[in-house]
Amino acid sequence: MPPPLFEDSPIPPTIEWMGDHIRLIDQRKLPGELVLVDVRSVEQLCELIFDLAIRGAPALGAAGAMGVALASVQGREMAEAASLLRATRPTAVNLAWGVDRALAAADPVAEAVQIAVNDVAVNQAIGAHGTSVVPDGARVLTHCNTGSLACVGWGTALGVIRSAHEAGRQPLVWVDETRPVLQGARLTAWELQQLGIPAVLVVDSMAGSLMAAGEVDLAIVGADRIAANGDVANKIGTYSLAVLARYHDIPFYVAAPSSTTDPTTPSGSEIVVELRPDAEVVEVGGIRLAPAGTAAQNWAFDVTPAELVTGYITEKGISTTASCLI
Amino acid sequence: MPPPLFEDSPIPPTIEWMGDHIRLIDQRKLPGELVLVDVRSVEQLCELIFDLAIRGAPALGAAGAMGVALASVQGREMAEAASLLRATRPTAVNLAWGVDRALAAADPVAEAVQIAVNDVAVNQAIGAHGTSVVPDGARVLTHCNTGSLACVGWGTALGVIRSAHEAGRQPLVWVDETRPVLQGARLTAWELQQLGIPAVLVVDSMAGSLMAAGEVDLAIVGADRIAANGDVANKIGTYSLAVLARYHDIPFYVAAPSSTTDPTTPSGSEIVVELRPDAEVVEVGGIRLAPAGTAAQNWAFDVTPAELVTGYITEKGISTTASCLI
Repeated sequence: MPPPLFEDSPIPPTIEWMGDHIRLIDQRKLPGELVLVDVRSVEQLCELIFDLAIRGAPALGAAGAMGVALASVQGREMAEAASLLRATRPTAVNLAWGVDRALAAADPVAEAVQIAVNDVAVNQAIGAHGTSVVPDGARVLTHCNTGSLACVGWGTALGVIRSAHEAGRQPLVWVDETRPVLQGARLTAWELQQLGIPAVLVVDSMAGSLMAAGEVDLAIVGADRIAANGDVANKIGTYSLAVLARYHDIPFYVAAPSSTTDPTTPSGSEIVVELRPDAEVVEVGGIRLAPAGTAAQNWAFDVTPAELVTGYITEKGISTTASCLI
Repeated sequence: MPPPLFEDSPIPPTIEWMGDHIRLIDQRKLPGELVLVDVRSVEQLCELIFDLAIRGAPALGAAGAMGVALASVQGREMAEAASLLRATRPTAVNLAWGVDRALAAADPVAEAVQIAVNDVAVNQAIGAHGTSVVPDGARVLTHCNTGSLACVGWGTALGVIRSAHEAGRQPLVWVDETRPVLQGARLTAWELQQLGIPAVLVVDSMAGSLMAAGEVDLAIVGADRIAANGDVANKIGTYSLAVLARYHDIPFYVAAPSSTTDPTTPSGSEIVVELRPDAEVVEVGGIRLAPAGTAAQNWAFDVTPAELVTGYITEKGISTTASCLI
C-alpha cells in the first residue's frame, strides 16, 4: 500500500512491504535500468544493504524494520535477525533505529509499514520547512543522494529541493558526483532528471571553485547521524564542503528527520567512522583505475562539527542549534 | 640520448627525440601497460596532446618544442605547425613556451633536445630545494600527477617527494585520485609504486577529513601557470585543497619550474579556464556513470590565489612571494 505520493511520482517507492516479502529498487543498477528485487530472506536483505543496493539513512530505517518483520512472518528468531541487520552498516543509526522499533512492536509488520508511511510524511514536512531557505532561482549544491531513493520516498536534502521546485522557486542543482560510490552521478542526477529539475553534474573537487566564482547560493546535505551537540556524520566529502562553504560565506544546511539525531552520542568524536573496501576507490564498474597493489583509505563518512552548520532542517522546522533536535 | 638519470630510473623518459621522430609514453594506457608511441606527424602529436596521452606542464613544454622540431626536419611550414600545437591546450603556458623556443631557435631540433635535458636538471634542482620543507616521516598530500610522467623526467611536486625520499626523509604520500581524469590514481600511484615510496590513494573529497584528523603535515602541488602576482592555475581541485589547508593551518606549497610563471598575466583573474568535454565526468573507461542526457560542468583548472600559497619551490630556491619568481 504505497502512500498517495507515489500515484503521481515518476519514482516508485524505494522499499515496500508486499504482504509476505519485501520489494526494493536495486540502486546498483541505476541509472542504467530501474530493477525491482523481491527479498525473501534476512540474509538476502543484509547482502543488499552491505552492497549498497539500498542505502540512505531513512531508507535503511525502513529496511531494518521490514527485515525484522520478514523474520517475524517467517517464524524466525527475531533477535538474531536484528543482530545480522545491525552489523551490516554499523554507522547507520537509522538502520538500528528501524530494527529496534520493529523488535519492540507487538506487530512488527504493522510497525514496519507505519515507518514507511511516516518516512514520506516526515520528508514532505522537511521539504515544506526547507523551502523557506531556497531563494528564487537559487543555485543549490548538494552531495551524495538524499532523494526519494535515499528514503522510502520524496527525500531529505533533495526533498527540500523538490519541494522548492514544486513551490515555483526554480532551483538549479549542482550535483556533486560523490566519489567513490558515485551516488550523485548515478542516483541524484537520475532523480532530478525524472522530476524535471535542472541539474549540472560536477566532480567533488570543483565545489570550491564554483563557490569562489559566485555560482553557489547555498549547500544542502543530508545526515547519517547527528550527535547530541549537532555534529553531523555524513558521506565522505561533506566536511570538506562545509569548510569551503564557511570560507566563502555560503549557507550550509543539513536536512534530516529528527530520528537521525542520536541523543546517546554526545559529540562527533564518539562516532566510529566506517571503513569500506579499497575496491570502491581503486575500481569503477569493474574497471581498475589504480595499479594492482595500490593501498587506499576509504572512510565512508566524515564528521562535520556543529559550528559549520547554518541550520538543521527537520520535520519540526528549522533550527540553528542542535538543542532543538532531540 | 636520455639524460643519465634514466640509466637508473625505473621510469623511462616521458618524451624523447629519436633523430627523425618523437617517442613518448602513452599515458592513457597506464597503469595497465607501459606503451611507447612513435610520433611521425604534427597532427598525430596534437591528437595525443588533446587526448592527454601526454600531459603535465613541463612535458608539454618539451612536446611543443619537439613538435616544431618534427615540422622542421620534415620541411613543413613551422608557423602553421606552431599554431596547431598551441591550440590543443590553450591554458598550458609551457606548451606555447616550448613551441616559441623551438620556433625562435636557429636549430629547432637542438633546442628541443636541450629543453628536454634542462627539464630533468631543473626538476632535480626543485627536488633538492624542496627537500628542506619535508620533515622526517612527513605525511604529504598531493594532487594530480606532477611526477616523471608530467615532465620529461623526475617531476616537480612529486619530484620534491622523490628527492626527499632519496634523502632518507621517509615520506608517506596521500595521493588524491584527481577526478575526472584520475591522474593521481592512474599515474601518481603507479610512479610511487615504481619508486618504492609508500603511498595511499584517497578520493579527492577525503582531503579535508584527513587534515582534520591530523594526518597531513603538508600539501605540495604543481602548477600549469603562475600569474605575475603568484596566483596559480592548476588541476581542478587545487583551490579546494588550498582553502582546506589554510583552514587547518597546514603548509601548502607549489612546486614548478620558474618558466611556469607568465609575466604577461598580471593575476589569476586574467587566466581563461579551459572547459573540457562532459564525457570525462559522465564516463569512466567507457562506462557511463550518470544517466544519458546529464549536463556536466568540467573546468579543467582552477585558480588558487597567492595568499593561500605558503611557498613556491622552483629551481632557483623557495620563495614565499611571487616577486622572486620572474
